[in-house]
Formats: sequence, structure tokens, C-alpha cells
Amino acid sequence: MLRQNDADGMKSSLESLHPATIAETLEEWSVDEIWKFLSHTDIRTQAEIFAYFPDDLQVALVEGAGRQHMAHLIEQMSHDDRVDLLQRLPPRVGEAILRLVDEADRRDIAALYRYGENTAGGIMTTEYAWLPENLTVGEALDRLRLQAPDSEIINYVYILDDQRRLRGVVSLRNLILARRDVPVRDIMETNVVSVHVGDDREIVARKIADYDLLAIPVVNDEGRLVGIVTHDDVIDVIVEEATEDVHRLGAVGHIEDEYLNAPFTSVWRTRAFWLACLFFAQLLTFGTMAIYQSVVPEPLMVVLALFIPMCISVGGNSGSQAVTLITRALALGEVELKDWFRVLWHEVKMGLALGLTVGAIGFVFAYLTPASVLHGIPRFELSISIACAVMFICFWGTMIGAMLPLGFKLVGIDPAIASSPAVATLVDFTGVIIFFSIAVVILS
Amino acid sequence: MLRQNDADGMKSSLESLHPATIAETLEEWSVDEIWKFLSHTDIRTQAEIFAYFPDDLQVALVEGAGRQHMAHLIEQMSHDDRVDLLQRLPPRVGEAILRLVDEADRRDIAALYRYGENTAGGIMTTEYAWLPENLTVGEALDRLRLQAPDSEIINYVYILDDQRRLRGVVSLRNLILARRDVPVRDIMETNVVSVHVGDDREIVARKIADYDLLAIPVVNDEGRLVGIVTHDDVIDVIVEEATEDVHRLGAVGHIEDEYLNAPFTSVWRTRAFWLACLFFAQLLTFGTMAIYQSVVPEPLMVVLALFIPMCISVGGNSGSQAVTLITRALALGEVELKDWFRVLWHEVKMGLALGLTVGAIGFVFAYLTPASVLHGIPRFELSISIACAVMFICFWGTMIGAMLPLGFKLVGIDPAIASSPAVATLVDFTGVIIFFSIAVVILS
Repeated sequence: MLRQNDADGMKSSLESLHPATIAETLEEWSVDEIWKFLSHTDIRTQAEIFAYFPDDLQVALVEGAGRQHMAHLIEQMSHDDRVDLLQRLPPRVGEAILRLVDEADRRDIAALYRYGENTAGGIMTTEYAWLPENLTVGEALDRLRLQAPDSEIINYVYILDDQRRLRGVVSLRNLILARRDVPVRDIMETNVVSVHVGDDREIVARKIADYDLLAIPVVNDEGRLVGIVTHDDVIDVIVEEATEDVHRLGAVGHIEDEYLNAPFTSVWRTRAFWLACLFFAQLLTFGTMAIYQSVVPEPLMVVLALFIPMCISVGGNSGSQAVTLITRALALGEVELKDWFRVLWHEVKMGLALGLTVGAIGFVFAYLTPASVLHGIPRFELSISIACAVMFICFWGTMIGAMLPLGFKLVGIDPAIASSPAVATLVDFTGVIIFFSIAVVILS
Repeated sequence: MLRQNDADGMKSSLESLHPATIAETLEEWSVDEIWKFLSHTDIRTQAEIFAYFPDDLQVALVEGAGRQHMAHLIEQMSHDDRVDLLQRLPPRVGEAILRLVDEADRRDIAALYRYGENTAGGIMTTEYAWLPENLTVGEALDRLRLQAPDSEIINYVYILDDQRRLRGVVSLRNLILARRDVPVRDIMETNVVSVHVGDDREIVARKIADYDLLAIPVVNDEGRLVGIVTHDDVIDVIVEEATEDVHRLGAVGHIEDEYLNAPFTSVWRTRAFWLACLFFAQLLTFGTMAIYQSVVPEPLMVVLALFIPMCISVGGNSGSQAVTLITRALALGEVELKDWFRVLWHEVKMGLALGLTVGAIGFVFAYLTPASVLHGIPRFELSISIACAVMFICFWGTMIGAMLPLGFKLVGIDPAIASSPAVATLVDFTGVIIFFSIAVVILS
């Protein structure tokens, strides 16, 4: 259509399709083509479509558009999305555009700018529907008709006193179902679930999910309504937090962009950093083995060396299971710091049960080792050593995996450090000590 | 209050607090106490509170209540929640209660029962607001006033033809903003985003998230509207799917219940199963090392054995990073099967960059090894061997971690098998081969 310059076709498809669908189709196009195509509709629709583009494309589009045009577009964007956009722009570009935005919008943007990215204030929007206390349902509906086009969602209407303190909330649904002459005060819900503007966005997400809300009001220290967080932003928060957890557990560090779009060097830097840390930590394993190598007689050392990777990997794996379960349970709020003893007790029992299971398998394995590999080491004693070592290492891995995330959380360190590979590395080193201590006692 | 038998106090707190808050408080109580407390309010409020209890408490409560009372409660519950509940009850209890539920509700339950748990049909509700095509806005609002109490959410009203085929959708907000004499047809959106009743619930979740919807209509093969999925159910789906991913990557298997509530033996079974599988797989590492042990002269073997855990762990860690990134990108839809070549190319470059980094560190480590540990093995050649081995193992781990999840997805096997520990185990065995091949060539 663009090639044929079919203005009517472009205009009608721009107005009939969902903005998300249009954005998805346009993603593959060049910046110039996108702007040319968008110019066939009004600025309001352009703003709607614009909000669905991926973050980096938005930035590219801003830089490819006229400043004046961008200022108008920003005036039309939803209040939370535009602050996100401005924060991602190079500061000079952002300021140049902001100077052209009209006074009221500029003041609103400045207000939202103040809050941290991970707080309720950082993800809220200031477009909410509100009404004073003393109206009837009929008056309320009439007022909403005037107010609505400006508010992102009016499924909830917040009732404020003259200090803008939150008095109650009424759903649009209940407004419609009620008789027009009933006072709004009689049908409003006065027990309003709200969050503080400084609350972590994870708390906001959890409250919206727990109470099945479409939006949650955000209040400041004086209890005044300053914004709302809507359900769609919460879905994004939940997905992002889950991705952070997954990356953290895989020792990837934190990568914000989509996999194929993330800049190569920054991904290399975080991955190499963690690999190098874990490699350094393996010096402990190396050192421990070197000490035992000088103590244990050579033929025994050669046989034992065969079993080391197998035995210590059990601890890494059981530790990985425990750290995964506990980290996820912490993230979901199923487990809190005060539950540490219940968690410990649960994992003590589990570690023993798993240790006995894998220890038994270890005994059978070791017992079936061909004689040519044994170099004269007594078969039964070796099997007992392996079984005991596997059992203890498995138990120990479970303990480390369970307690490390709780421990980091307790002392206020970022639990990001307690990844599966980090636990495995820590268990490798201690596993070698357990392995040799048991083998030396039984076999020497 | 229960102890003092303060009926008024109980009634007023039951009616003023949010059902989710009440449910949270009551969770700690015994089944009898909960029912005694709930009896102070009407059956409708009871049903609302009941829906917020955790799954296992719901089952316990059903078993502790009279059949007749439960039947009434189920009639009041939301249509998707009650089907979930009935599916979790022992079949005999469920049937006994169902027999007492009234005809219309029973038929509705039977209809929802048919769909798989992970499909759109399995998470949808049949309570939606709908209207025929030929009404004005005023008539539509009057009809909704009659229909609304029965529909879970009326923020969207679906417009159906006389075959119940989906013609359009109109938001309650737009209905209120429009003039009463305008035909609904003029303000409805005709490009409706919908899902098929058999679609996977992940697809449903992604569509709701992508289009920022409050609810999505579900249609059958003939295009007839059969239900809607609401945003709150989608948040649950997203959280559950993320938990599944996390558990899978940690080689935990799938655990459905909350961490502290999950039955001990079933958790033990899945964890022990994976540990045992990984332990069995380590036999490959053992076997490979045994073969090299019989070939490599003893003093060299003793020295090389020291470096093995350190060198092969690099591959496990780089593999864990890659499998984490790719699995998460697949889950988020950032990467699809058709992108396999871009992923491969990205990881080839990344694997080389990471391998060179860690290989260089490996060289320095090996070069600084104290002479007492070396047993006369030439320092420089050893360091070169270690550096090459670490580099190749790191690269190889990255390749395995990147390609395994894509490979499993391609052949239709559950990618659950490509966990971090599984990749680490696979890389351990191949890592030993790489390690010895390089060392033997350079040092013999």
C-alpha cells in the first residue's frame, strides 16, 4: 500500500485494526516507512500504536521524527508510557522535546519522573477517574462522561475528599446498576486496597493479583491519591520479575533486553563476569584436591580421582534443586525469612531421603566397577566409601542450596549470587573434602 | 469474636472487609471454626470468600460441610472456579454434591468439564455480558442492568448475532460515553481479538498481555462465543508457567503445590528421580575417565585429575547460562524455532568470546601451579593444554546449552529435560573427552 501510495487503504487499515496488531506488522519496517505510514491517521491513533512498539524501536522513531511532531505525540501518550520513553531517550533529545510539550503535560511528566523505576510511583499513571464525595449516581455518571476520555481506565472511580484523600471506590459496573438518585457514598466500597507511592513494584503486582483488581490506587505519605497502577502494567512486571529470577538462577546476571536484541558486549560482559567468578571459585576445589594428592598414596588417588566428578556432581544437582525451590518460593511470597526453621527442617528430611536414595545407587555402581580399574583397592570398602560420600554430599548440597538464598536475604545481600552454578561450585569444593575425608578414613 | 459469639461483630467484619483479606485471616483456623464464622453472612459472600482459599483448604472445607450447603455455595461461585474445585474433589464427593446443584448450573459445569486443564476452555468462565446486534445504547444499558449481576465482568459487552456468533465488542466505558439513541453497532469494535476454545492457555495469556485486555472471548469451531477468560486468571497462568520454567531449569521436575504444603513423598519422588537420572548419566563421565586412565601414564594422570573438576565445570556453567537464556526466550516468545540459525550464530560468537576469556584465565592459573604439584610435567605445555581445554569446553557447553532446548522443541519432546544440571552433566562427559584429547596430544 505504501508503495502504491494508497492513502485511503492505509487510513482505513490504521483505523480498523487493533493498535497492537499494527505495531507488530510495522516492526520490520524502516523508521522512515513507519512515519510515512502513520502520517495517514490522526495524532491520537499514532500515539496508541506508538506505545505498542518495542522500547528500542520507540527510541529510534523519536530520533527519526521532527521534534514538534514528537511533542504532540507525547501529549497524547498514556502518562506512564511517555515517562518511560523519555527516560530512555538521550538526555539532550528528551529535553529538547520536553520543551515543546504543553505546560500541564510537562508538569505531569516532571511529577512522575521523581519516582524510582521499581516503585509503585515509577509504574503508575496519573490518569484516573475520580469524583468528590457528595454526588448522586446520576450526577456521577454525567461528570464521568466529561472526564472519561482523559482517564486511562474508568472501570474504577475513586471518591476523594477536598484534600484529595481516598475515601472510597466504586466500580463503573455498580454505578450503572444503581438507581440514579442514590448517593454515591451509599454504594462505594470504603475498604480500599491501596499501595504507597514508594512501595516496591513486586508488592504492587502481588496485591493486584491477590485481590483480582483491574487497578490499584497509589497514595502518598499524607494518604492523598497520586495515581493508579493498572493490571496490564502488572502483567509486564510479573513477567520481568520472573525473567530476572530465571536469569539469576542460571548465573547469567541481569539482561534487560530481549535475547536477540541485547547488545553483544554487554551480554558478554555479564556472562564472562559470572563464568570467571565461578572459575576462580573452582581454585578452592583444585587446592583441596592438591592437598589430598600429596597425602593419599598414588594408586588409591588414581582410582578415587575417577569417582570425583560423579560424586561431587550429585551435590551440585541436589543443591540446584533446593536453591531453585527456595528462591522461587521466596519470590512468590510462599516462604518468608521467618519460615527459615520450617524450610531447614523440611530440607533436612528431604536431604536425608535423597541422600539415602542416591547413596544406595552409588553403592551398586561402585560395587560393579570392573577389577581392571580398581588397581587392587578392596571392592567392598570402596563401595561403602562411595555410598557414604554420595549420601553426605547430596545432603550437604541440599543444605547449602536451601540456606544460601535465605542467608543472603537475611544479611541484605542481593540473593542473585545464590545461582544454581554458584551453589554447585561451592558444593564442589566442600564435596571434595567430604569425599576424601570419608575415603581416607575407610580405605587407609 | 468467635469465642465471645459476637454475631454482629462477625457479620459486620464479613461484610466490610475484602473477601481476599478475610480468606487470608481465616486460613490458619480449623475447618469447623471457618464454617461457624462464615455462617454469619449470606451464601453469596461465603462463596466470594471461599474462592480465595488455597486449593487444599477448599477441598478440606467441602469435606467438612453439609452436602446441601455446599451445593448452594457452588451455585453462587464463579463458573471457572467451581469447575476447578469439583475437579480436585474425590470423584464420589464431587458427584454427590453435583446431584444437589440446580439443573442450569449443573449443565454449565458439565460443559466446562469437557475442556483440558491447560486450554482456553479449561480456564474460561461462561459468565459474560452479551447483547444482540440491533439495540441502541440506551436499550443496551437497560438490558445490562438486568443481566449484570450474573456476569463476572461486564467491562466488555459482546455483541452476538442470532447464531451466537461474535460480531463485535463494546466497552462499558464507551457505552456510557455515547448518546443513548446511537445504535450499539455504530460504536462497537468489529475487529475482535479472540481465542479458540482448544488454544493453549499460554497463548491466551500472551494475547491478553499483548493487547492489554481485561478479558478475551473464547469461540468454538463454528465461531460461536462459548466463554471469556479474564485478566485475573491470566495473571495466575503467567505466574504458574514461570514457576514451571524455573523448576524445570533447576531439574526439580514439576511441583504443583506451594513449597511448604506440597506432599513430602511426591516432592521426594520427583527430586530423587532427576537426581538418579543425572547420577546415571555421570557413568558416562566415569567410563570415559576410566578409559583414559588406562592409557595415560600414571604421574601425568594424577596431575591432570586435579584439573578435571575445574575445567569441566566451566562447560557446565556456560551451558547453564545458554540453556537459561534460550529457554526463557522461547517461553516469552522472543525466540521461535525458525530463529534457530540466528540463535546458533549468536551463541557461536558468544561461545568463542567467552571461551577466549576463560581460557586466558585458565592459562594464568595453570602457569602459577606450585612445582610440588606438577610431578615434573612441563609447566608451559601443561598451561597451554589447560587453556585450550577450558576454551573448547566453554564453547562446547555454550553450544549444547543453546541447541538442546531448541532440539527438544523441534522433535516435540518436552523441553523440561534440558535443565541446567542436565546440560552440565552432558557437558561433563564430553568435557572429559575434550580435556584428555587435548592434554594427550600436547603433553605425550
